[in-house]
Amino acid sequence: MHPQEQVIGILGGMGPAATADFYTKLVGRTQARRDQDHPCTVIWSDPTIPDRTQAILGLGEDPTPWMLRGVRHLEDAGATLIAVPCNTAHAFVPALQAKTNVPILHMIEETVELLFAAGIRKVGLLATTGTCRMGLYQGFADARGLQVLVPDSTVQEKVMEGILKIKGGNASSEVGRRLAGAAARLQTQGAQAVIAGCTEIPLALSQEMLRIPLIDPTGVLADAALRQSGFPLQGPGPETGSAVLRM
Amino acid sequence: MHPQEQVIGILGGMGPAATADFYTKLVGRTQARRDQDHPCTVIWSDPTIPDRTQAILGLGEDPTPWMLRGVRHLEDAGATLIAVPCNTAHAFVPALQAKTNVPILHMIEETVELLFAAGIRKVGLLATTGTCRMGLYQGFADARGLQVLVPDSTVQEKVMEGILKIKGGNASSEVGRRLAGAAARLQTQGAQAVIAGCTEIPLALSQEMLRIPLIDPTGVLADAALRQSGFPLQGPGPETGSAVLRM
Repeated sequence: MHPQEQVIGILGGMGPAATADFYTKLVGRTQARRDQDHPCTVIWSDPTIPDRTQAILGLGEDPTPWMLRGVRHLEDAGATLIAVPCNTAHAFVPALQAKTNVPILHMIEETVELLFAAGIRKVGLLATTGTCRMGLYQGFADARGLQVLVPDSTVQEKVMEGILKIKGGNASSEVGRRLAGAAARLQTQGAQAVIAGCTEIPLALSQEMLRIPLIDPTGVLADAALRQSGFPLQGPGPETGSAVLRM
Repeated sequence: MHPQEQVIGILGGMGPAATADFYTKLVGRTQARRDQDHPCTVIWSDPTIPDRTQAILGLGEDPTPWMLRGVRHLEDAGATLIAVPCNTAHAFVPALQAKTNVPILHMIEETVELLFAAGIRKVGLLATTGTCRMGLYQGFADARGLQVLVPDSTVQEKVMEGILKIKGGNASSEVGRRLAGAAARLQTQGAQAVIAGCTEIPLALSQEMLRIPLIDPTGVLADAALRQSGFPLQGPGPETGSAVLRM
């Protein structure tokens, strides 16, 4: 299919700031001289989708029907692939993929493949308690012989608190420092890189605050969406190890 | 209608970076403690819509059918109001509004009303040649007794060149300085404020580069969309003159 016939569908709102961040990265990563060089994109941003972590922990409603409503909307709009810029939501992606013929990119799988290609064998994970509990990264990492290190439960509670603060609009430097502290502890345990495994994390934690590479799955997903749709990327892609170290 | 039943529709892609910027502002301006406090939003971002300025100058295809396709899509998705984060595209908004029952917010009218309420009587305009040529701001300003100053044709050519560079991904400091120079000339002619009258301009020109307030219609539109949908704004709204001076 010609790139101009592609429509990138974004199932968003989980949360909305992460959706805005993803779309900004998608636009920024496209090699374009003018508007018309960019892909058609349709975004369904439904922030009322029940909390994914709560559902995984058995404390809240199943978000699948809400997410499926979004998928149907993206199908109707002509989406030729779907990206879901939310790590925790990937727990529900297999169920959604079973109900649609439109391919859903798997952000977590893409990220693990990138780390593996870059020669990383031990990686730290900062993510929601839901993402950690579900072993979303661990599953794909195991298949590649990659070891995933997560914070102990006391630190994990602080990480989750930080994520909820960012969702509440408080991406303060104090939250960033707390996340950086958790990352530093993972580094002392041998992590060669850290995954910003919740789409809110890059809003408070930046590469400058860490001494090991910070991998942003949102950026990895943007690159994958463009590549799969046949749109050229701006500058060198993140396929190489050097690019991972650049991130 | 209850805010939770509202769906903000965004007719975007003109250009895509401006759409991402608008959505980022919409999310950032919402007073929210958690994802579920944000409005449902659907974005149709079609960067293949023919260039608006070229059409106005009689040099290119009429974008109305493309824009109408987007409106239909937003209607199908349940949009309860539509925002168009592109100044020049507002030349085609009356034709679109005539064909849909969904109210389309008028960014230019909202901006002029804000300036008037803030006591501004003479305002500079940095915009595409299409926006200037169509008198998009002048029409609404005249009705309020507001005088709009535009650059002379030599400077306007430089402004248009700068806008096209930003669309091409080059929001460099050199482009910003060129725009700031054009704004300073309008100030010497008596402008009390300057409108960043093309959604790409705030990507290169910031308030710090000017000595008079820089009004960002994208932010004004985000506030209007939230207000009309019944969502509370973060901090003081831009309804007051002091807020204009704050911008």
